[in-house]
Amino acid sequence: MSIPALVSLEAIRAAQTVIAGRLHRTPTVRSAYLGELTQTRLYFQLEMFQKTGSFKVRGVLNNLHHLSETDKRKGVITLSAGNHAQALAWAAQQMGVPCTVVMPATAVKSKVEATKGYGGEVIQTAGNLLETCLTIQKERGLTLVHPFDHPMTIAGHGTAGLEMLEDVPDAAAVICGVGGGGWISGVAAAVKQLKPGIKIYGVEPEGAPTMTRSLEQGKPATLDSLNTIADGLAAPFVGQHNLEHTQALVDQIVLVNDAQIAQAMGLILERCKVLAEPAAASTLAGLLSGKIKVEPGSTVICALSGGNIDLERLKLVL
Amino acid sequence: MSIPALVSLEAIRAAQTVIAGRLHRTPTVRSAYLGELTQTRLYFQLEMFQKTGSFKVRGVLNNLHHLSETDKRKGVITLSAGNHAQALAWAAQQMGVPCTVVMPATAVKSKVEATKGYGGEVIQTAGNLLETCLTIQKERGLTLVHPFDHPMTIAGHGTAGLEMLEDVPDAAAVICGVGGGGWISGVAAAVKQLKPGIKIYGVEPEGAPTMTRSLEQGKPATLDSLNTIADGLAAPFVGQHNLEHTQALVDQIVLVNDAQIAQAMGLILERCKVLAEPAAASTLAGLLSGKIKVEPGSTVICALSGGNIDLERLKLVL
Repeated sequence: MSIPALVSLEAIRAAQTVIAGRLHRTPTVRSAYLGELTQTRLYFQLEMFQKTGSFKVRGVLNNLHHLSETDKRKGVITLSAGNHAQALAWAAQQMGVPCTVVMPATAVKSKVEATKGYGGEVIQTAGNLLETCLTIQKERGLTLVHPFDHPMTIAGHGTAGLEMLEDVPDAAAVICGVGGGGWISGVAAAVKQLKPGIKIYGVEPEGAPTMTRSLEQGKPATLDSLNTIADGLAAPFVGQHNLEHTQALVDQIVLVNDAQIAQAMGLILERCKVLAEPAAASTLAGLLSGKIKVEPGSTVICALSGGNIDLERLKLVL
Repeated sequence: MSIPALVSLEAIRAAQTVIAGRLHRTPTVRSAYLGELTQTRLYFQLEMFQKTGSFKVRGVLNNLHHLSETDKRKGVITLSAGNHAQALAWAAQQMGVPCTVVMPATAVKSKVEATKGYGGEVIQTAGNLLETCLTIQKERGLTLVHPFDHPMTIAGHGTAGLEMLEDVPDAAAVICGVGGGGWISGVAAAVKQLKPGIKIYGVEPEGAPTMTRSLEQGKPATLDSLNTIADGLAAPFVGQHNLEHTQALVDQIVLVNDAQIAQAMGLILERCKVLAEPAAASTLAGLLSGKIKVEPGSTVICALSGGNIDLERLKLVL
């Protein structure tokens, strides 16, 4: 299997000019209370305030920007039950690109509605999501915008890493949730190339240890079943680019359970007054559980990747 | 009854220099989605990100600043079950002033702990709160820092009004929740003196219509019973200063019910990803319920006064 090159700092800086003025420059803020609790100088990057409520638009917008005019006219397609669907629909609408999203028949109604609200054509299927997606892609001549396994996506996500270091130049560690691996690939590419001394930690749910298995096997693993409250981290596989970035740039991947994620989510909500979805709160869970060990008193950034969760689900989780 | 003078713009600007660097300059941000829902250009002032999680520290800090050195040495006292208790304890700790807070025996444990955590001495009583407070005040020679009925408190709260107009200079209306009336007195004093054309609306819960009754009677009314999920607005009486400010500066006070407050709170949480406590969310409820009528398309600020609510309570409310 060929080893793809890591995304360069230049590619991430180029992505920064693509998103400038179109997306929010989200803040990274300190929490004194949760810092005391974790014996760190603790910061949260607040990506729930990003357009569409998650980091996904960073990569998507960069991806769309690099399509040819012909491909833009024909349109884009993806498969997603959640944040990526909304992000692609929103970004495509911004750029006047037709957008189709294949979603499972069981997808949460509010996410289907949100995707439609951004002008996306939603096709729901009870069958195989990827097969349906590829069939329609071929029929209509659409471009598939992958949720995580693409250098342009990774470069787009990397812009968040640049912003975090602008806000917290003395960071000693950055923690990201890991699903398909796109978010941590981008953040790690930015952070490690700018400041190689900063540690990068990834957190996976015990019920969706896709990257952990992939690292063990030395190739992208596929999981047969996923079982976690962190739907944003429940990717059945990781991408080749994502695995390569993780192998090269990430210091450690740890596993946390759902109870730890729920507790972290509640603490962030109650103490910081912001809604972090489980995928985002997993970062704090990694720290609170003791799975991630940092030097006491050191400066740590938990990247809170998004805040999309239904109220009904929120009540169940809390 | 003597009519106290309204708090001047100069007093509010002086308060601004007192709090500068000690408190957060909270942001006022737009919500496109909730704006569409209310047919307005809708902004939220995010005071839940203030120190101690509510606006109360603005007034308290200004109040403490104007105490004599002797009074500071002797210490301060107040009665509160909630946000004011935490704010006074925090501000007193910052200024090295001893602080006593009389709280009901039934006070929420987390609020008692938070107050103690800020170094406050907490005295809980099953008896009359005010009597207990005044007895201890006299015995120990302490200064009572009133939760809302004091010009220095009102001037401190007014600093939030200055900030809102800095962020949203084209505002046509500002909406505040009304409990004892301190918050709306301060915000209205700042806003109306700077831009008299801006409408000021207050929102009270149907189960705690203290200001509504006071306006009807033309003097501060006392309620025998309070029944609302918006504990931050459940003041059994309003202050004379607060009534005077409301009579002179507030365009309308409307009533909303608990279901409307809960719905607004859920919308703010789900769409804006921030935790507004019921008292804060009441502002959006005033707009969504149609009780507050503004010109369609006009620019409206909902002042979200705080975000202190237990997770257990949050689950019940949502």
